[in-house]
Amino acid sequence: MYNPQLNQHGELTHLLTTEGLPAPILRQILDRARNYANAAERDEKKHTTLAGKSVFNLFFENSTRTRTTFEIAAKRLSADVISLNIGASSTAKGETLLDTIHNLEAMGADMFVVRHAESGAPFLIARHVQPNVHVVNAGDGRHAHPTQALLDMYTIRHYKGEFNNLRVAIVGDILHSRVARSQIHALTTLGCPEVRVIAPKTLLPTGVEQLGVHVFHDMEAGLKDVDVVIMLRLQNERMSGALLPSAAEYFKSYGLSPDKLAHAKPDAIVMHPGPMNRGIEIDSTVADGSQSVILPQVTFGIAVRMAVMAILAENKQ
Amino acid sequence: MYNPQLNQHGELTHLLTTEGLPAPILRQILDRARNYANAAERDEKKHTTLAGKSVFNLFFENSTRTRTTFEIAAKRLSADVISLNIGASSTAKGETLLDTIHNLEAMGADMFVVRHAESGAPFLIARHVQPNVHVVNAGDGRHAHPTQALLDMYTIRHYKGEFNNLRVAIVGDILHSRVARSQIHALTTLGCPEVRVIAPKTLLPTGVEQLGVHVFHDMEAGLKDVDVVIMLRLQNERMSGALLPSAAEYFKSYGLSPDKLAHAKPDAIVMHPGPMNRGIEIDSTVADGSQSVILPQVTFGIAVRMAVMAILAENKQ
Amino acid sequence: MYNPQLNQHGELTHLLTTEGLPAPILRQILDRARNYANAAERDEKKHTTLAGKSVFNLFFENSTRTRTTFEIAAKRLSADVISLNIGASSTAKGETLLDTIHNLEAMGADMFVVRHAESGAPFLIARHVQPNVHVVNAGDGRHAHPTQALLDMYTIRHYKGEFNNLRVAIVGDILHSRVARSQIHALTTLGCPEVRVIAPKTLLPTGVEQLGVHVFHDMEAGLKDVDVVIMLRLQNERMSGALLPSAAEYFKSYGLSPDKLAHAKPDAIVMHPGPMNRGIEIDSTVADGSQSVILPQVTFGIAVRMAVMAILAENKQ
Repeated sequence: MYNPQLNQHGELTHLLTTEGLPAPILRQILDRARNYANAAERDEKKHTTLAGKSVFNLFFENSTRTRTTFEIAAKRLSADVISLNIGASSTAKGETLLDTIHNLEAMGADMFVVRHAESGAPFLIARHVQPNVHVVNAGDGRHAHPTQALLDMYTIRHYKGEFNNLRVAIVGDILHSRVARSQIHALTTLGCPEVRVIAPKTLLPTGVEQLGVHVFHDMEAGLKDVDVVIMLRLQNERMSGALLPSAAEYFKSYGLSPDKLAHAKPDAIVMHPGPMNRGIEIDSTVADGSQSVILPQVTFGIAVRMAVMAILAENKQ
Repeated sequence: MYNPQLNQHGELTHLLTTEGLPAPILRQILDRARNYANAAERDEKKHTTLAGKSVFNLFFENSTRTRTTFEIAAKRLSADVISLNIGASSTAKGETLLDTIHNLEAMGADMFVVRHAESGAPFLIARHVQPNVHVVNAGDGRHAHPTQALLDMYTIRHYKGEFNNLRVAIVGDILHSRVARSQIHALTTLGCPEVRVIAPKTLLPTGVEQLGVHVFHDMEAGLKDVDVVIMLRLQNERMSGALLPSAAEYFKSYGLSPDKLAHAKPDAIVMHPGPMNRGIEIDSTVADGSQSVILPQVTFGIAVRMAVMAILAENKQ
Repeated sequence: MYNPQLNQHGELTHLLTTEGLPAPILRQILDRARNYANAAERDEKKHTTLAGKSVFNLFFENSTRTRTTFEIAAKRLSADVISLNIGASSTAKGETLLDTIHNLEAMGADMFVVRHAESGAPFLIARHVQPNVHVVNAGDGRHAHPTQALLDMYTIRHYKGEFNNLRVAIVGDILHSRVARSQIHALTTLGCPEVRVIAPKTLLPTGVEQLGVHVFHDMEAGLKDVDVVIMLRLQNERMSGALLPSAAEYFKSYGLSPDKLAHAKPDAIVMHPGPMNRGIEIDSTVADGSQSVILPQVTFGIAVRMAVMAILAENKQ
């Protein structure tokens, strides 16, 4: 079966989505990331893996935080990093997306890190680049955000060991979340036997059960005996209007407070992709509490992005 | 004769314009660029030529694409690169251009890459910097864009060999084009016997013949038997109003379509400085066709900018 | 006495203000800066002191000039530098300042260079970072701008030797100036016997004499026999309205013209933090004259910022 992320030897040449990515590839990334994380612990942050390579950060949709993590990851691998705010550039001059890409390729790009408001844009780019050029999806529309999902998998494995006896709950705006989609695919592939989603009906995509998840509309039932609680960020624009009554109402029903968390296993970990809306989707007591692994997620995120870039650079289409 | 770009030994200390630049200097740049281009082909992109040097990109006029090419070129030479969007900075605080320059010089700048909406601004800067500081004009008003012209010369020489038996046509908005001016001077100096310009009367400067070019208003006649076709970008703001009836009308008369290109020699190459307006000055069939060398231009542009910076760094005023 | 900038061994771990900083620490910074300045004179600009370290420029208040000096200083020490315009980023998404800091810390930050419109923000950050993370205040509200004051001390010592027989006048908008506050503290600590401030009453803070300065409202008397004249920048927004009659009126009374400067010692030096408003707080004849050391200040500023970063990196909380 054709997989646009793998070459004919089954090696990773682009990272576009966790959907359809074989478990050995996921584990290869997590294992490589562990090497980088361990080295950083020993204060060996800098590596020469991408010395002489040019990494282009193409953020058609603004995100300082994610762009920064990729910039740091690439610099720690000694790449030359060029960050372009493409919205303000050539597209304004009427150049097509592919013309922009081909131009940057002609400048000697080795890797594109792409965030785009339209689902599928990184796939389109990956289809058209030269065999020695790699594409990393840094978030496309509502579709996928694979490096976020991978750093979440890293975090879960770090604290909980293997996936095959874990119960994981994802809470919040599943409908609009590319993070949730990528997490569900990764968890399923890695053998997690029970993935739950907890959300009001208005924030769930129709047919979400077909992804292999169990649907809950109530926190008490949904969090019961889970090992991992993944909170999603509630976008400001959802907090009023048709989908939700109000932020206060949302917090009351779906905000993670200590009493709701008490239904999970006592050693359950709490995760969040950031940035957090304290008091809306998560209570500060929980966010800063002993079960929170939200800041380690960020640290692992650098190691995971380094691992992805390092692996891609080894493989040709 | 005094040349503000050369020192007393006749060596290049600033690159401000192709006008008045001796042929041996032009060839020195092209030859050095070939070394860098060949090294890049062997995947040796990174050099230490400018290690420890500070290159400042001063873009008083916004241009992500050109700024990016200089940033890449400087980083490939291992320089520290600082990119400043000056419009938004000190000039807003009422500081004069020369105060800004002297301040950056005092910070240890070794080279300024300057783009400015006013013709002559890089010359003013070059006149006031210290003897060990170099200025590269990255486009000033309607005046000059020497690195673009040099990369075009590189491209022509790469595909066509020497200049002394070539017929070159430059097509489009000659009136507002600093690129066209710089190309004409470079082609003439390098011994090209026949340079043609093809444009409607409203897009030609008065007295353009004095630059040594042949003027055509008709594509069929102008492209007849040429070896090289250089298309110019039509700025959006020209496409309506007094100078041109409409974009569609322009394409009909001056857009490069396969049937118009058929009047050129069968092995003629097609060039464009980018970004292209497909369907306005150039047809997609031609832009993506076998005679197009538009993407190689971009690749050569990195090598040419590296060559310019490397040569400048060797010479003192 | 607890000093938030020093560790238990009395070593510098953050640079937040010159207030309360012991003279040996100030001298340590100036001495280290001299090494870097001397090396730069020998064209040895690049050092490996911070190789593998990550320096984050966090400018919550925009300042291209100051940000650039820190960026250059960090790059000359071989650090990886990430510059964030935080105003446009996470704070817009509702994340708290400390959440942003903790996230960047989790990404492996070794040093934060912080500019913030609110006085005290860098102190808040310094109180919450890990023991191996350092904070440099690059200007907070009206409170402090210690690296500017330190480069001014460097400049004075460079031209005038020791501080214990100097008369220094600071002229202009003392009321709103964090630079003036930091200069006064540094001068006093370094043993300068006479610090004067010269300003209209509307631009002086109440009780300024308690800082140990002599107050003058008249330039002739205030500049009489001083060794050093430090002009302050007059912010545009002060030039009209309640505090000042007009820019022209201000220049007449407090602008540094050659005839006013004649009251200082014949070998007095003239300083300005930049960017200058020529013709408002300083006459061009003086700014460009033989007594001006305004551009050397900029050069020394790079060395001083390198020294601060290098010293901080050696010390743990």
